[in-house]
Amino acid sequence: MSQDELTLRYMERTSTSRKLYERAVRVIPGGVSHNIRFFDPYPFYTVRAKGAYIWDVDGNKYCDYWMGHTGLILGHSPDIVVEALGKQIGNGTHYGTVNTLELELAEKVTEIVPCAEMVRFCNSGTEATMYAVRLARAYTKRKRIVKITGGWHGGNTLLNKYVSLPLDKPESTGINFEEQMYVDAIPFNDLEAFRSILSNKRGEIACIIVEPMLKGCIPADRDYLKGLREEASRNDVVLIFDEVITGFRLSLGGAQEYYGVEADMVTMGKILGGGLPIGAVAGISEIMERADPRRYGKGELCWVGGGTFSANPLTMVAGLATIKFLEENREDVYGKIGRLGEVARRKIDKLLEDYGVMHAVVGLESLLNIFLTNKCIDIRRYEDFEYIDHKLTQRFYKALILRGVFFLPEHTGAISYAHSDEDINHLILSVEEILVELFRRC
Amino acid sequence: MSQDELTLRYMERTSTSRKLYERAVRVIPGGVSHNIRFFDPYPFYTVRAKGAYIWDVDGNKYCDYWMGHTGLILGHSPDIVVEALGKQIGNGTHYGTVNTLELELAEKVTEIVPCAEMVRFCNSGTEATMYAVRLARAYTKRKRIVKITGGWHGGNTLLNKYVSLPLDKPESTGINFEEQMYVDAIPFNDLEAFRSILSNKRGEIACIIVEPMLKGCIPADRDYLKGLREEASRNDVVLIFDEVITGFRLSLGGAQEYYGVEADMVTMGKILGGGLPIGAVAGISEIMERADPRRYGKGELCWVGGGTFSANPLTMVAGLATIKFLEENREDVYGKIGRLGEVARRKIDKLLEDYGVMHAVVGLESLLNIFLTNKCIDIRRYEDFEYIDHKLTQRFYKALILRGVFFLPEHTGAISYAHSDEDINHLILSVEEILVELFRRC
Repeated sequence: MSQDELTLRYMERTSTSRKLYERAVRVIPGGVSHNIRFFDPYPFYTVRAKGAYIWDVDGNKYCDYWMGHTGLILGHSPDIVVEALGKQIGNGTHYGTVNTLELELAEKVTEIVPCAEMVRFCNSGTEATMYAVRLARAYTKRKRIVKITGGWHGGNTLLNKYVSLPLDKPESTGINFEEQMYVDAIPFNDLEAFRSILSNKRGEIACIIVEPMLKGCIPADRDYLKGLREEASRNDVVLIFDEVITGFRLSLGGAQEYYGVEADMVTMGKILGGGLPIGAVAGISEIMERADPRRYGKGELCWVGGGTFSANPLTMVAGLATIKFLEENREDVYGKIGRLGEVARRKIDKLLEDYGVMHAVVGLESLLNIFLTNKCIDIRRYEDFEYIDHKLTQRFYKALILRGVFFLPEHTGAISYAHSDEDINHLILSVEEILVELFRRC
Repeated sequence: MSQDELTLRYMERTSTSRKLYERAVRVIPGGVSHNIRFFDPYPFYTVRAKGAYIWDVDGNKYCDYWMGHTGLILGHSPDIVVEALGKQIGNGTHYGTVNTLELELAEKVTEIVPCAEMVRFCNSGTEATMYAVRLARAYTKRKRIVKITGGWHGGNTLLNKYVSLPLDKPESTGINFEEQMYVDAIPFNDLEAFRSILSNKRGEIACIIVEPMLKGCIPADRDYLKGLREEASRNDVVLIFDEVITGFRLSLGGAQEYYGVEADMVTMGKILGGGLPIGAVAGISEIMERADPRRYGKGELCWVGGGTFSANPLTMVAGLATIKFLEENREDVYGKIGRLGEVARRKIDKLLEDYGVMHAVVGLESLLNIFLTNKCIDIRRYEDFEYIDHKLTQRFYKALILRGVFFLPEHTGAISYAHSDEDINHLILSVEEILVELFRRC
């Protein structure tokens, strides 16, 4: 079955979405509010989402593994969140002042998340990582930031560098060289690379910011994270875990708890807001207090947002309902989603193996991603992405969509507590059907 | 009455808030999720908000002129927004995919807002201004950004410069010189300053970003904005209006419509999300299309977010309900809030005059701010802020809070459609009582 046949079938099923997308490209660049939401030939238009499912405007139902950029650990519109929001909306959607809800959620974060002695809420992961590296620099009085090649920390000017292939081209026009000149990148899962840059730029490095799962799907080796911790401490470098994806996902305490490695700072988002807009930067008090406006005057203070909507009561109640549920049902939730993830990865891996398709099934616990490759490769760092056969992988994911299984093509999928064994069975069965369809005639 | 007496009375009324704040400073830097939310000795804790009023945890009721950082033009939790949210929450709080609601709101923006041929939604004003100047640079292929001294465009690294006095100190530690080296500032309402920098840095300036009301309260002269427009066109410089505050506030079409001056790009937030988190960058298609990922590959594309929560359905329905209401009740809403604002400014100005208190009452339409000064001054640019008597102004606002009138001290106040003539009368009466109290014994 050719790409065109799959595309034609997709277009047949999504004719209303096509018309809406044609309207959208006239008023929104690319027709999307986030570039990655586009997939060829056009994305379907969601009109409803509940539990593990989303429905498009043409009446198609999908089992959703995109789960709002992995943010919805309890599925779409879980009852406890709907109830909490229902109670709050009449009492104020946005105070713009300090409130008891933000205090409650902040205390929850400091109880649950290792290294989080203090926390600042903001609006997005893009903001959280920007403030985290700013704080690390303010604290260390050093300039340089080390990130991981391929690491995604949002669209902020500083960290929007060395994110995608080809690495020698800028991620964005409109950013000047000097504005990113103190940001270096090293390969993931490569402790020697960190040692080497520490040695070459001795005394200049403020922090290293790393996703414990690169792009949300490539797990770090435990020894790698432990090594980063040791070298960071030895060199007075701030270790920042970007846990926007892994926070409250790999375990209640995120990757720090899962790996047993404590960072100095952690950025969060997604799950923390219970499906509503949030970002957060947290860490040890010694660093975080640099943002205290009562303690530092102008010229001494590290300015950290905030924003108009930070700590808004709707996000706070949705976050509180979610985090409390996770806390109270910890073993059940993480046991279930981890088990389903493990089954999905293992069985899909075996199927691809059986059909002789070169591939890499990556992930950990409830996170997974499937790449078809042009080389037998164990993807362990971003440099390995060059072996992905993007055309084939796109076909694979499109064929899944045609079977009512939605992964945002090539992006990390997430299993929620709302997913059932039947959903996972359907995913695996769909993969098998696709292999028959796509590879029998190859 | 001394500062201490006012503070003691405030503390008596807010003993629970005090205890909560003591807990908050242990887990949140400064105890606040946005630095400006702190005021001495500690802010009160909001537990409920409806219409023109907010209630604190100690049972005090305040008529609210802070209105969620000016974002709530219809007041707190207006029925139409509560209803729209109530319908949506069970249908999906966050899709993470394209959806019909974002298309509807995007089309609304392009219909209503002059120069907005295309729009991209993101999460905050901080993000919107960052993306706006990035787009302007990508389009012009020039490096320099001109902003206004005192202009506030959020916490992003680039524009967090020349915001507050003393201007020679950095706004934040942890930002390197090079990261802001292409940002210059000129005084507000000073067209010659713009002409001068255009001439000194000929061919280098990508854009000028300006709030049509500086800090949301100092109005631009119409001729100034017209002059900026002419000079920008003549020099191929992109004119960006930061309308995060003035958008849908000065008029339905914002400052562009109010002043009859069309920019090339406009940033929005606050009101557009109907009280829920949002940011947006909009402008003419020729510039905006630089962010279209279907048209430009890596190295050519201007990367503009987005973010996980961009175009989330709760913000979209709240925004749509609000904007539609404003559209359908345009004359009523803007007529009322503009009239109340005018009455408030005029009467408060007269009272301060009558009591011989040096002051500046600034604002336009529904926006207002009151400064007590140590010089008779008409505040027209940020440099004039040096004449503000901050201690006295803080006392003034604290005395208002003790009378159940809440302005975030020294920050722009906003009148909503939920405010009544009685509320404004109470504000004016309170000012008179304060003048008796504070100045009789001076």
